Amino acid sequence: MELIIKTKTEVRDPEGESIKMYAVNKVDSNVADVRAGKYLLFKLEADTCENALNRVKEIAEKARLYNPIIQEIQVRLS
Amino acid sequence: MELIIKTKTEVRDPEGESIKMYAVNKVDSNVADVRAGKYLLFKLEADTCENALNRVKEIAEKARLYNPIIQEIQVRLS
Repeated sequence: MELIIKTKTEVRDPEGESIKMYAVNKVDSNVADVRAGKYLLFKLEADTCENALNRVKEIAEKARLYNPIIQEIQVRLS
Repeated sequence: MELIIKTKTEVRDPEGESIKMYAVNKVDSNVADVRAGKYLLFKLEADTCENALNRVKEIAEKARLYNPIIQEIQVRLS
C-alpha cells in the first residue's frame, strides 16, 4: 500500500518552491508548479484491499505520520 | 504529473526502518515492511501525456532530483 503525504493546497510549500526555483527552472522553465511530499510504501497482509487501505489510514493517524492541520494523505493500492 | 523517488530495493532504507520500528510497530505490529521515499507533484502543460511523462523524467535527471546509483524513479499521471 502507498501512503502519500502532501502539504494542503492552501498551505505554502517552501520545499517544492525551492526545488522549482533552484533546480527545475534551470533545466525547464515551463513548469508551472512543483509541490513536495512524502511517499511511504507499506507491506502488509490483509483479507481485502479495503481492509489494507483502512489499516494504513489508521496507522497514519495513530502513529502521527502526518499533521492533519497542514497536510493531507492519500492511500493507494501499489 | 507525479514523480516518485524510492531507494532501490537492494539498498538499505534507514528512514523507512525507523518509521516502522519506532512509530508504525507501536500501533500495528503486523506490518511487514515500510519503505520511505519522496513525492513530487509537477504542474506543466504538454501536448500529450507521453510528452509530459518524458519531460518530467528528463527534469528529474538533468536537475539531479534523484541519485540513480541508489534510487529509482516512477513517473505517473496524477
